[in-house]
Amino acid sequence: MPDDNSEGDNKQVTTDSACLPNQRPVEPALRDYSNHERKSMTTRNLAILLFDDVEVLDFCGPFEVFSVAGHFVDPVAFEVYTVAEQAGPVIARNGLSVNPHYGLHDCPPPDLLIVPGGQGTRTQMHNPVLIEWIKQVAGESELLLSVCTGALMLARAGLLNGLEVTTHANSIEALRELVPDATVHPDRRFVDNGRVICSAGIAAGIDMSLHVVARLLGTEVAEKTSQHMEYPWEPASR
Amino acid sequence: MPDDNSEGDNKQVTTDSACLPNQRPVEPALRDYSNHERKSMTTRNLAILLFDDVEVLDFCGPFEVFSVAGHFVDPVAFEVYTVAEQAGPVIARNGLSVNPHYGLHDCPPPDLLIVPGGQGTRTQMHNPVLIEWIKQVAGESELLLSVCTGALMLARAGLLNGLEVTTHANSIEALRELVPDATVHPDRRFVDNGRVICSAGIAAGIDMSLHVVARLLGTEVAEKTSQHMEYPWEPASR
Repeated sequence: MPDDNSEGDNKQVTTDSACLPNQRPVEPALRDYSNHERKSMTTRNLAILLFDDVEVLDFCGPFEVFSVAGHFVDPVAFEVYTVAEQAGPVIARNGLSVNPHYGLHDCPPPDLLIVPGGQGTRTQMHNPVLIEWIKQVAGESELLLSVCTGALMLARAGLLNGLEVTTHANSIEALRELVPDATVHPDRRFVDNGRVICSAGIAAGIDMSLHVVARLLGTEVAEKTSQHMEYPWEPASR
Repeated sequence: MPDDNSEGDNKQVTTDSACLPNQRPVEPALRDYSNHERKSMTTRNLAILLFDDVEVLDFCGPFEVFSVAGHFVDPVAFEVYTVAEQAGPVIARNGLSVNPHYGLHDCPPPDLLIVPGGQGTRTQMHNPVLIEWIKQVAGESELLLSVCTGALMLARAGLLNGLEVTTHANSIEALRELVPDATVHPDRRFVDNGRVICSAGIAAGIDMSLHVVARLLGTEVAEKTSQHMEYPWEPASR
């Protein structure tokens, strides 16, 4: 349990299906994850890729969700860490300076990889070192998640061909051009292909992360997480 | 304009008044800020206080809102920076390592100060150096904002006496004990006293920040910001 949970919180989350997040409806065909895919009572490695000009909320939203959710089960469900190409601080969009936990070569093998977006993707999508690393990790990981324009990085790695995908509203056309055989959904907060999940812009990464928590740990843990975070989550599964 | 705004986005934000965020209704008496308090066409200094075990989304949510919003006006509306007691990395809750821009002694004077929460507040609320600094800044700043259990820090600095306040759901009683003459609102996402504004837990700091953007720069800029962030914002002002 997160340490902040010093008092009980039995409040009901609003379940009014009319309450949809800003701009994008939630996943319409979200499965009932009450019979969830609990891999085992082990801790999953969850890597978040960082690079200069990564959008702050793109990586901090999922960092928060998986960190909080992980502590609602025992043993802790996720070992959440950040990874970047080079040692030394990453300067995120608008100047936040973050020290990644690992470089590409000493990074523990991720079970889940999150590729966030931000202005930096426009440069990094042409960085063969990062794109090759993403390809390599993708071949060995359980889930591959993009937030916002992180989808452009997955597209460049050839991982979105033929899939259902989405990205930030401003980059829908760019994604269409990169993967002409993918089905791009400008109207969804996230799209789940099974092993590859893409979210829409910035805050939608939080919704996608809660969806993944529901899928891996059950809806009850996802609900507790959104309640603890006091985040206005509206999964279509309820 | 944020660089990601390469394409127009004229989508309407949902305005259904039934669509309230998780657990907490929005400020019921939110003013109409169409006649907003534009100070002047100058850039405001916005400092975010960091300390070990600060909750990640508590400070990253407002960092994102004010950074994005600031670029919708010219000149940029906010110079957003982080400040901590000591030089060197701050290790936020769950291990995110951040390099603050300034220490207490070289920090540019804040026009707005944000005090986030997290497990670290339980230690830092008893740190006389930080509490004295908050008192000093409070005396000279335009707005003083707390997120989550950051309210405990403001309370210890004697800045919440007699005010309307709120905090994370799990710390409502702790806040009541610290400021017995304040009116604590466990059912509000934020409470605006004019110069002092407290938000509820974690993600509610995003709502409070959007409210402050609306107040200082107008509702149109706040709407553009929430749309760009794809955040499910539901201000009661509409």
